[in-house]
Amino acid sequence: MVIQVANYISDIEPYEGGKPISEVARELGIPENKIIKLASNENPIGISQLAKLAINSALKEVERYPDGNGFHLKKIISEKFSITPSQIILGNGSNDILELAARTFVTLKDEIIYSQHAFAVYKLVTKAIGAKGVEVPATKYCHDLNKFSTSITKKTKLIFIANPNNPTGTLIDKKTLKSFLDSIPKHIIVVLDEAYDEYLLDDLKSNSFEWIDTFRNLIVSRSFSKAYGLAGLRIGYGVGSPNLIELMNRVRQPFNVNHLAQEAAIASLNDKDFIEQSRKLNNEGMSQIVQAFKELNIEFIPSYGNFVSFKLQDEKTTMLYYHHLLKNGVIVRPISNYDLPEFLRVSIGLKNENKIFTKYLSNCNI
Amino acid sequence: MVIQVANYISDIEPYEGGKPISEVARELGIPENKIIKLASNENPIGISQLAKLAINSALKEVERYPDGNGFHLKKIISEKFSITPSQIILGNGSNDILELAARTFVTLKDEIIYSQHAFAVYKLVTKAIGAKGVEVPATKYCHDLNKFSTSITKKTKLIFIANPNNPTGTLIDKKTLKSFLDSIPKHIIVVLDEAYDEYLLDDLKSNSFEWIDTFRNLIVSRSFSKAYGLAGLRIGYGVGSPNLIELMNRVRQPFNVNHLAQEAAIASLNDKDFIEQSRKLNNEGMSQIVQAFKELNIEFIPSYGNFVSFKLQDEKTTMLYYHHLLKNGVIVRPISNYDLPEFLRVSIGLKNENKIFTKYLSNCNI
Repeated sequence: MVIQVANYISDIEPYEGGKPISEVARELGIPENKIIKLASNENPIGISQLAKLAINSALKEVERYPDGNGFHLKKIISEKFSITPSQIILGNGSNDILELAARTFVTLKDEIIYSQHAFAVYKLVTKAIGAKGVEVPATKYCHDLNKFSTSITKKTKLIFIANPNNPTGTLIDKKTLKSFLDSIPKHIIVVLDEAYDEYLLDDLKSNSFEWIDTFRNLIVSRSFSKAYGLAGLRIGYGVGSPNLIELMNRVRQPFNVNHLAQEAAIASLNDKDFIEQSRKLNNEGMSQIVQAFKELNIEFIPSYGNFVSFKLQDEKTTMLYYHHLLKNGVIVRPISNYDLPEFLRVSIGLKNENKIFTKYLSNCNI
Repeated sequence: MVIQVANYISDIEPYEGGKPISEVARELGIPENKIIKLASNENPIGISQLAKLAINSALKEVERYPDGNGFHLKKIISEKFSITPSQIILGNGSNDILELAARTFVTLKDEIIYSQHAFAVYKLVTKAIGAKGVEVPATKYCHDLNKFSTSITKKTKLIFIANPNNPTGTLIDKKTLKSFLDSIPKHIIVVLDEAYDEYLLDDLKSNSFEWIDTFRNLIVSRSFSKAYGLAGLRIGYGVGSPNLIELMNRVRQPFNVNHLAQEAAIASLNDKDFIEQSRKLNNEGMSQIVQAFKELNIEFIPSYGNFVSFKLQDEKTTMLYYHHLLKNGVIVRPISNYDLPEFLRVSIGLKNENKIFTKYLSNCNI
């Protein structure tokens, strides 16, 4: 066998997602309906009823290829945010946007900057194209943009920023972010990943779409997988200046976003009540879980997302807690691959799910 | 504006798909229900009823991320074809498999071989990674594997073969194909694209999955978009030796295949009647259209797919026919981008759709 691949391919460590409910059921012999998954930052209330109706209606032409140009969805997005369809690219999840940005603008010889503890996919897409990843140390678990600036070299071609960041839940305030964009060379692409933007209070949002005309090197990515609850359908989008978007569209697979996802996303954007309800439930659940951490004297990183990471004594204790929760049917997420081996990340669930999580958290006899 | 991209990116010409019904309706002011789309090799009878039920049932957990490992679907595929799950990779359409193969095994310095008139995506994925594409002249519109052999150089890293090929519909017989695989160096990856395999009579199928153990450099790709009718959902898969599949999985996006597509594919594989019905309708429709070509003295390329390409006098006449059909609500596909400017490709539709197509074909006053 003499198939050779580039070293950068064989060096990739595959992404480890949250354990699916079906997998835990198989492995531990627990009935699926007894399992609570708080491991993948999914929306515990599901999806908008309008989206369900839209999917059912779209089923009648599911044998047709989807609209590769995403005409209707781009129109709805552009109207909602006062941008133009030519500033929008659709992705098979926002993961697809992150990957397309790297594949379009970065070559083997270039460098990509991202933060320690930042979303794992930045490192993966960097490795998959064989570029050099530059991981900038975090300060108090947060992106440190000053250190980003000093890490820029002649080879820097792209910078990934997650805001809020997963799995730390930290937020860079909009003024700091804008100053950073102002300060860096304009030939460097900045990908601002705002997958959790919908959970932010209005005055904390950076309203980054308004920056697109000023910063022609900026690409903002958004997701329908989180607050909109469409994780299972795979849809996200990127917003940037038309010439960046046009270049990314050349690399994009012609039919990367399925038809049902497009129709569900259109309906979801029209359902403001659903997003309000999701945000409200998340705020209440976050308070509930944070309260439990305080009562149990468990350290945690204050989070702006729909999840929160908490710290246990050491790596061994962390895994004992993880397995204790797991065997009681509660799936959370170890994040040692994020350089946080003493932490677990829990997604905010329904009130009763949060209660069960805190119950098993409190009765773990280590 | 000083954003620079590699020449190979800016040289990509985006893929042009078949015109969507909604686009023709918008542009020509024809009601959508009066438009017949025979432009994208879709299944005119839709999808399996079992698949519809599966999608409806899967909707209840569409807020969850899909199973990134595709456990259940790989199990069903492996049982159906007597292979192992470790020999299977799932894709967001088989397009994703073609792209993953190129991105995993080919670098900027390498060459990729494909045929003249072959599926356009081979050239696109080659360009997107900046590799050199070597287009081998076709013989009588068919892949000429002898010329493939003589085109191999030290830099050849991957060969794309479409069987049957789109848009010509030509088939390489299994003996010729196996001899070719026997003859070429074993460090060269061969991607055998069998998107239309389900339409072949049993004794014409190459049964290429049986070759996987022998040819450790072979990757076969299959699609659910054609005979299974799931084009709108985006799902396909690749089959190859476990070590090739494992490498491709490193480059694959963790959640590249949506949940509804996985469930629909599982149900579709269990519905043998649907595939039989699709194949029967396709054979009847092919006879109907071929008969019309003969009566109208129109030259065509005999096809093994669910489409057939036919030749008109010259490029100008071809586009006159195309627009005549279009303004009468019949969408077919010009294929000048396949180096076949005098041809149009028509997908086999329902009996009545084929009849309307042949009617407007015969009354075009050029």
